[in-house]
Amino acid sequence: MLEFNREWERYKRLVEEGLDAFLPSEEEYPQVLYRAMRYAVFTGGKRLRPVLTLATCEAFGEDPKAVLPQAVAIELVHTFTLVHDDLPDIDNDDFRRGKPTVHRVFGNAIAILTGDALFAHAFRVLVEGNFPPDVKLRFLKEMNNALCYKGVIEGQVADILSLEGNPGLEDMLFIHSHKTGKLIEASVVIGAIAGGAGEEEVAAIRRYGRNIGLAFQIMDDVLDAVGDEEEVGKRLRKDFNKASAVRILGLEGAKRRADHLIEEAVSLVEEVLGERGGFLRDMARFIGSRTY
Amino acid sequence: MLEFNREWERYKRLVEEGLDAFLPSEEEYPQVLYRAMRYAVFTGGKRLRPVLTLATCEAFGEDPKAVLPQAVAIELVHTFTLVHDDLPDIDNDDFRRGKPTVHRVFGNAIAILTGDALFAHAFRVLVEGNFPPDVKLRFLKEMNNALCYKGVIEGQVADILSLEGNPGLEDMLFIHSHKTGKLIEASVVIGAIAGGAGEEEVAAIRRYGRNIGLAFQIMDDVLDAVGDEEEVGKRLRKDFNKASAVRILGLEGAKRRADHLIEEAVSLVEEVLGERGGFLRDMARFIGSRTY
Repeated sequence: MLEFNREWERYKRLVEEGLDAFLPSEEEYPQVLYRAMRYAVFTGGKRLRPVLTLATCEAFGEDPKAVLPQAVAIELVHTFTLVHDDLPDIDNDDFRRGKPTVHRVFGNAIAILTGDALFAHAFRVLVEGNFPPDVKLRFLKEMNNALCYKGVIEGQVADILSLEGNPGLEDMLFIHSHKTGKLIEASVVIGAIAGGAGEEEVAAIRRYGRNIGLAFQIMDDVLDAVGDEEEVGKRLRKDFNKASAVRILGLEGAKRRADHLIEEAVSLVEEVLGERGGFLRDMARFIGSRTY
Repeated sequence: MLEFNREWERYKRLVEEGLDAFLPSEEEYPQVLYRAMRYAVFTGGKRLRPVLTLATCEAFGEDPKAVLPQAVAIELVHTFTLVHDDLPDIDNDDFRRGKPTVHRVFGNAIAILTGDALFAHAFRVLVEGNFPPDVKLRFLKEMNNALCYKGVIEGQVADILSLEGNPGLEDMLFIHSHKTGKLIEASVVIGAIAGGAGEEEVAAIRRYGRNIGLAFQIMDDVLDAVGDEEEVGKRLRKDFNKASAVRILGLEGAKRRADHLIEEAVSLVEEVLGERGGFLRDMARFIGSRTY
C-alpha cells in the first residue's frame, strides 16, 4: 500500500496545482466570489474523483497531465454539489472536513452563487486542453450524463424525497448510484477516453466506476454508523439518513454488498488493464475498506 | 409593428415547442423535479433571449429551427438564474409574472436543485443539433463567457455587494452589463454563428447584443420607477435596488442612455444585415420603449 499512497500523493499534487491554475484569482473583482470558490475547493480533501481521472488516463498509456483540465472540472463539479448540499435549506451542515461550510463563512446568498459559479466554471475547464473537438464533446456528454436527467441532481432530489417516505433497497440503490456513483463513473470514463481506450475498454471501465461509486457510498453509510467522527472529519450518525444502506441491509449486509461490488470492480480492471491497472485495483480495495 | 409582433409570435411558438420537447417528462421519476423545472419554465414569459437567437440565425439566412436546441438552452439558463435569484436567501421574491415563485410552490431545497437541474440540462441541449463539433464548442464557449468569470453570476454577486455600498455609475454599468447583458449578447452571437455569420459580422452582432442588453436592464430600472405593477407582472419600486440606473442617472438621464444604446444597436444591425435585419432593428426599438 506504500506504493499506492505514493502514487495517490503524486496525482493529488497535480490536482492541487491544476485547481490553483484554473480558478480565478482572489485579487479580481468581485473578490468575495473568487475567495469563496477557493475556500470551497481547498479543504484538504482526498481528491478521489480527479485522482481517478488522472490514474485511468495514465493506465491507458497517456500522460496524466493531458487530462488535468478535465480532472479539475470534475472536482469543481463535485465541490459545487457539496456547497449546495450543505446549505441550510438542504442538509444544513455547518462543517465539512472540520472547517465551517461556505454559507457559514460567506452567507447563504454568496454560497448559492459560489456553487453556481463553480458549476459554470467547470464547463469552461472541461473543454480545455489538446483534444480534438469531438473528444471534447464526449467529455461534455459524460459530464451531462453524470449531472442531470438521471444524474447527481436526481440522486439528491430522491434523497430529499426519501426523508418523507420509507425508502427500501431500490430507493437506496437509486440514491447512492446517482448521488455519488454517477460522478465517479464519469471520472474514470473521461480518464479512459483521454487515455485512448477503445469502446469495449470504456464500457468495462464504466462498470468499474459504477461499482466503486456505489460501494463508496455504501461504505459512507457504514462509516456513518460505526466510524470515528474526528477521523472522518464530518458529523456522523445523522438520524435523518433514512436511505442508509446500513439501515436497509444491516451493517454486515452493507459490508458484504460493498465487498461484492469491489471484487467485481477488481476483476474488471484486471481483465482490461492487467498490470497497468494496479492503482485502480488498489483504489477499489481502498474504497472497500476505508476508515475515513 | 404588426409585422414585428407577428414574427415574434412565430419565433415564440417555436421556442415553446422546443422547450416542451427538450424538457424531461413530468411522468418520470423523480417527478417533483421535472414538475418544478416545467413550472419554472412555462410562466408565459416573452422569451426575449431565445427569440433573439432564432431571429439572428434567420437574419443570416439559415432556418431558425436549426438553432432551436441552442435557443432552448439559453432560455433554460435564463430560467435557472431567475429561480436562484428569487430564493429567500437572495432577492426573496414570492411572485414572478403573477405566479408564485418556484420555492413558494416546491420549497427552498427543491428550488435550489431545480435551478441546478435547469443549468445542467441546458449544457446537454446546447450541443444538440446538426452542427460540426467545432461549432458546438463555439456555442459552449459563448455560454461559458455569458455565465462565469465575468458573466451573469459575477453581475448578481456585484448586485448583492452593491446593497452594502454606495454604487456609482461604473458599478451600475458592471452589474447591468453582466447580470443581464451577457446572456443577451450570447443569445444573438450564438444565433449569428449558427446562421453562418463571418467573424466581423459576429463582432458587430456582439456589440448589438451588448447594447440592447444594457438598454434592457436600464429600461427595467425605468419601469421599476414609473411602470405599472400589473402590466409588468412583478413587484416594483423595490427600495433596495441601489444600483438602479434611475437612482444614479435620474429618470431622464437613464432614458437618454438607453436611447443612445438603442440607436447605436440599430445602426450596427442595419450596417451588417440591411433589410434582413428588420426584426432585430424593431426589437432594439421595442426594448428602448417597452412598457412591460
